[in-house]
Amino acid sequence: MTGTDGVAGGDGLTELFGLLAYAELVAFFNLSGDAELASTLEDKAALGEMAVAEFGHFRALHGELARMGAVPEEAMQPFVAPLNEFHARTAPADWLEGLVKAYVGDGIAADFYRAVAELLEPEARALVLEVLADTGHADFVISRVRAAIKADPPVAGRLALWARRLVGEALAQAHLVAAERPPLARLLVGAAGAGGQGDVGRMFADLIDAHDRRLAALGL
Amino acid sequence: MTGTDGVAGGDGLTELFGLLAYAELVAFFNLSGDAELASTLEDKAALGEMAVAEFGHFRALHGELARMGAVPEEAMQPFVAPLNEFHARTAPADWLEGLVKAYVGDGIAADFYRAVAELLEPEARALVLEVLADTGHADFVISRVRAAIKADPPVAGRLALWARRLVGEALAQAHLVAAERPPLARLLVGAAGAGGQGDVGRMFADLIDAHDRRLAALGL
Repeated sequence: MTGTDGVAGGDGLTELFGLLAYAELVAFFNLSGDAELASTLEDKAALGEMAVAEFGHFRALHGELARMGAVPEEAMQPFVAPLNEFHARTAPADWLEGLVKAYVGDGIAADFYRAVAELLEPEARALVLEVLADTGHADFVISRVRAAIKADPPVAGRLALWARRLVGEALAQAHLVAAERPPLARLLVGAAGAGGQGDVGRMFADLIDAHDRRLAALGL
Repeated sequence: MTGTDGVAGGDGLTELFGLLAYAELVAFFNLSGDAELASTLEDKAALGEMAVAEFGHFRALHGELARMGAVPEEAMQPFVAPLNEFHARTAPADWLEGLVKAYVGDGIAADFYRAVAELLEPEARALVLEVLADTGHADFVISRVRAAIKADPPVAGRLALWARRLVGEALAQAHLVAAERPPLARLLVGAAGAGGQGDVGRMFADLIDAHDRRLAALGL
């Protein structure tokens, strides 16, 4: 049903939305879990809001998959193992690591959404742009992380290492997924190269550049 | 600010909404956590939907507390310890126990909302009735639990015992809270007695009756 060597587009799009849908669902669960680490009710509620926003993205992608004629759970299934593996390797040790992970993950997801939006038909593009617009929570993370660094400057070094580990683990899984899913890889390469001239390595390099800019905003 | 021996009404309402707000926030986190126990993506998503609905209730109660001039986090604070204690004593061992707990907890919360709705001013009543109307998820739990019992009849006995333990632990904490919070206890007693003639014991007896009816619907 997916993963065959068909024309890019339909298959790739189903895979992409399946990947993003499962990523959002897991982000929802992880953020909810991380909120337990928050020391105040305000912070718990703020992380809860972030989690609920991710669930809204999941719901939108799930609905779009169904509209496209896919079985959403089948579309998500190939990405369960790699995403679970990523999260198992990057379980936050504390509240700050959880915040940085949420921020980095959100940012990488946003890059994906932005890169593919232009390739989509109007309806799917509207969905992706709607999901993208819902990013008001980064400010919360930035203010909390900056305050923590101000209160205890050495924390910046630890969080910078953590952020590098996150992106390293993400790229390791992403390479595996791209190798196993040619339609998805073609779709993403087309997006990154704005016409099929990019390659997977180039796309990942762009993602790393964007990641570094986000870390600078955090003060890392 | 709360918990003093003032007139029932304002104080009691702040306490009630603080209690319900924290209960909904914790329900959100617990349901998200329980969803990890689900074996299929469909069930994970369904429990996620339930969790998100609870967060919506939390958000509404939080907003209403702020509108009433209370600091929501201060209003919730007295109920953190008893609710955490309840949940620590009733951590579900598996997916079915989690479902039954969600269903029972939702039901008890609905009884509370219903009992106090009549005492409230129109705006607060509208909020409570809106929260009450959002109960479409019980059907999901009922169908899953009934299917599990059909597949393995002895499971009914275990879940029936579990449901009794849940209500016993809930009542134990509720008695402590009522003893420490006179304005809240007066408000609830007034609600249960429809004019102040009930007492706390009577109110809890009514809650147990309603609980038993809900278990019957589950096939327990």
